[in-house]
Amino acid sequence: MQNNDTIIALATPQGVGAIGVIRLSGPESIKLTNQVFKGKNLEAQESHTIHFGTIRDGEKILDEVLISLFIAPKSFTKENVVEISCHGSNFIIRQIIQLLIRKGARPAKPGEFTKRAFMHGQFDLAQAEAVADLINADSEASHHTALNQMRGGFSGEIKRLREELIHFASMIELELDFGEEDVEFASRDDLKDLVNKLLKVVNALIHSFDLGNVIKNGVPTVIAGKPNAGKSTLLNALLKEEKAIVSDIAGTTRDFIEDEIIIGGVAFRFIDTAGLRETTDAIEKIGVERTQAKMKTASMIIYLFDLSQVDVVEMNKEINVLENTGVPFLKVGNKLDKVKESFVEQLQKQHPDMLFLSANEPEQVELLKDRILELVNLDKFKRGDTVVTNIRHYDSLLQTKNSLDAVIEGIDNMVSNDFVAMDIRQALHYLGEITGEITTDDLLANIFSKFCIGK
Amino acid sequence: MQNNDTIIALATPQGVGAIGVIRLSGPESIKLTNQVFKGKNLEAQESHTIHFGTIRDGEKILDEVLISLFIAPKSFTKENVVEISCHGSNFIIRQIIQLLIRKGARPAKPGEFTKRAFMHGQFDLAQAEAVADLINADSEASHHTALNQMRGGFSGEIKRLREELIHFASMIELELDFGEEDVEFASRDDLKDLVNKLLKVVNALIHSFDLGNVIKNGVPTVIAGKPNAGKSTLLNALLKEEKAIVSDIAGTTRDFIEDEIIIGGVAFRFIDTAGLRETTDAIEKIGVERTQAKMKTASMIIYLFDLSQVDVVEMNKEINVLENTGVPFLKVGNKLDKVKESFVEQLQKQHPDMLFLSANEPEQVELLKDRILELVNLDKFKRGDTVVTNIRHYDSLLQTKNSLDAVIEGIDNMVSNDFVAMDIRQALHYLGEITGEITTDDLLANIFSKFCIGK
Repeated sequence: MQNNDTIIALATPQGVGAIGVIRLSGPESIKLTNQVFKGKNLEAQESHTIHFGTIRDGEKILDEVLISLFIAPKSFTKENVVEISCHGSNFIIRQIIQLLIRKGARPAKPGEFTKRAFMHGQFDLAQAEAVADLINADSEASHHTALNQMRGGFSGEIKRLREELIHFASMIELELDFGEEDVEFASRDDLKDLVNKLLKVVNALIHSFDLGNVIKNGVPTVIAGKPNAGKSTLLNALLKEEKAIVSDIAGTTRDFIEDEIIIGGVAFRFIDTAGLRETTDAIEKIGVERTQAKMKTASMIIYLFDLSQVDVVEMNKEINVLENTGVPFLKVGNKLDKVKESFVEQLQKQHPDMLFLSANEPEQVELLKDRILELVNLDKFKRGDTVVTNIRHYDSLLQTKNSLDAVIEGIDNMVSNDFVAMDIRQALHYLGEITGEITTDDLLANIFSKFCIGK
Repeated sequence: MQNNDTIIALATPQGVGAIGVIRLSGPESIKLTNQVFKGKNLEAQESHTIHFGTIRDGEKILDEVLISLFIAPKSFTKENVVEISCHGSNFIIRQIIQLLIRKGARPAKPGEFTKRAFMHGQFDLAQAEAVADLINADSEASHHTALNQMRGGFSGEIKRLREELIHFASMIELELDFGEEDVEFASRDDLKDLVNKLLKVVNALIHSFDLGNVIKNGVPTVIAGKPNAGKSTLLNALLKEEKAIVSDIAGTTRDFIEDEIIIGGVAFRFIDTAGLRETTDAIEKIGVERTQAKMKTASMIIYLFDLSQVDVVEMNKEINVLENTGVPFLKVGNKLDKVKESFVEQLQKQHPDMLFLSANEPEQVELLKDRILELVNLDKFKRGDTVVTNIRHYDSLLQTKNSLDAVIEGIDNMVSNDFVAMDIRQALHYLGEITGEITTDDLLANIFSKFCIGK
């Protein structure tokens, strides 16, 4: 792990903007920048100060810039860090980076700044990974969990688990030391209780991954129903409002993922909408099975009935199909404005959980949103519980669970302490991988290569 | 002109990056930021310092950020300026901007930061316009002229011109005051000499616009020739090298304009290449006129002959077409490797200005580049002379010239001093428009609306 060189990269996005920020980190970063900067002696300045001047390649001025200085260890990477704020021209940015590379800096690899921060103990691995999640967060829920993880929430929980396991392990190992004397420092039953307690926490974290995944990537949702039930009208009504909010502030329009809607801070992602829009043809052509297959890939189905065309036998058939998917669904009676009140009352008696609305009435679409949020179980997220969002952490937790299961099994089968201790060490290893107390170069390379350059 | 409010915008490009920078300017910018920042009392800090902390919406943490403070008048706009460096997530950026707007900031209009800098005398109008040019500069030449203009080179020249005119005007106006006494403070001949001297400078600036335009937008170039003369091979040879340079440094690849080549720091833009590549069909189909029309839109033609297929009569016909375009051209004999030396020597006697090469020999393509640079008259640029790149400045200079021409005409025709003085005031007005000593709200709105938001 070569950490003594000075790395450089553009920290802001490519493209047209007023300014670009070039970041250097490493022992020589201030010295190198000082060689091409005219205005002040940067090596004589204090940390956390900003300096105006020009970047020069020999006599040639490349740009007027602002230099921000962060002196080790008071920086993101805990190394000397320089940020050069220049005009947002790709030409200038390229020229400045090339100049500093000629002076001795090295182009940073993806995630290398964050990796250095991790290596220098700025934060643990789970927190470092949260930095990338935070950048990609596009809803309140995903932002909340990423920020919570970056600030150490999840890591704290893993550390507590690990400490309890280490305590447990130490007792077992002590018994091993005294093995021939047949000493028992903890009753087998007490040990089993402790492992079961740990397993309960690990299982809760494992189960939180479904919710975590949904928070991070959006709830895959299908709007289904017969032709003309009003599916597109409803989708557009939901999308339209969202788009209005998004374009509220000039200059902050985001990359809009077609058919993603944020409801109550949670992203709902309408999966395979092209297919979804053909669904009705598919029903006619290939039948119910295919529709069912499509709906099964969703986390939620919003199923629309056209109240003005209801055929009770047909409706019950459709509801039966819905129930067979095993996916949570909402029954929505659309075109409320086109039918008699008495008819709706009658239908409501049969289907008390059905929501009645007109998709072109904004207020009634609001009611649907409330029901959608109820259907996604967000209690955990709201209670502030720790939620697993990262598949690497999920895998490590599954491995931890397997090891702990083996410990219980070992105790039950009265296997020797050697084997129990080995399983505990395994569990400790997997938990340690999450926060980076246990790492390999491959693991680190794999994690940080997924970051963008400049982070 | 409402300048007392506090404006806010994202200063870095949209998209994925490690960080985003949000900029505020105005009297309340530090106070507003302080209301949502936890870490330090920002209002008690010095200018040009950086502070770590969190941005909070009530109890909810939006992000961990770095705050850079610039206290009036030591900032770009000469107002209080705050830069918030946050994680490069569109969601976070939007949340922070919305929060500060709720606290009282206003979304900035395009170019509003630069406009405020101009209004507060940070620089004149021509310099402000150069900021936008600098951001869009994509070659060394365009970067050089924009930076020179931003740093006041062009403005200095205009100011000198204006001072001489004001001196001249004061003499004429003095004569007007003493009009009835028939006093003459300067001989008519001396005055005419002075105006002619000014006209020479104005004309030189006007003529520099062709070069300026080429520097700013690239030299529109056509590679022409018969089918199979090697046009694509040559273009690819030129492009290939350029692309290799561009992709040299990871993370700094720029938006590549197809078929733009930088030679010696100057951009060459291959115009209408689709048409160009069909040119040969066009010759056969619609004849020479159409080809000529296409070539006339260029600033330069590189015309390729396939040496292995040369027919002297046909060749002279082609050269005749070239000469009739009135556009500077280079005659290039391609496929040098496929013909006998004696044949080349003979051809060289007839056409001493023809360049002989093989388009697939990199060294020989280098020779072509030298010739291309010779053909563009870059002496002015190299001598560091002031070059006009902005069409608004060009228009104002044309108007100045017309007014000065009218002064000369007035003197020659012995018209009354009243009219001469009026023409001089006109010339002063047009020169003043360039640097912004004379402005109207419409003019300013028009100029700054072309800027990006955040600048």
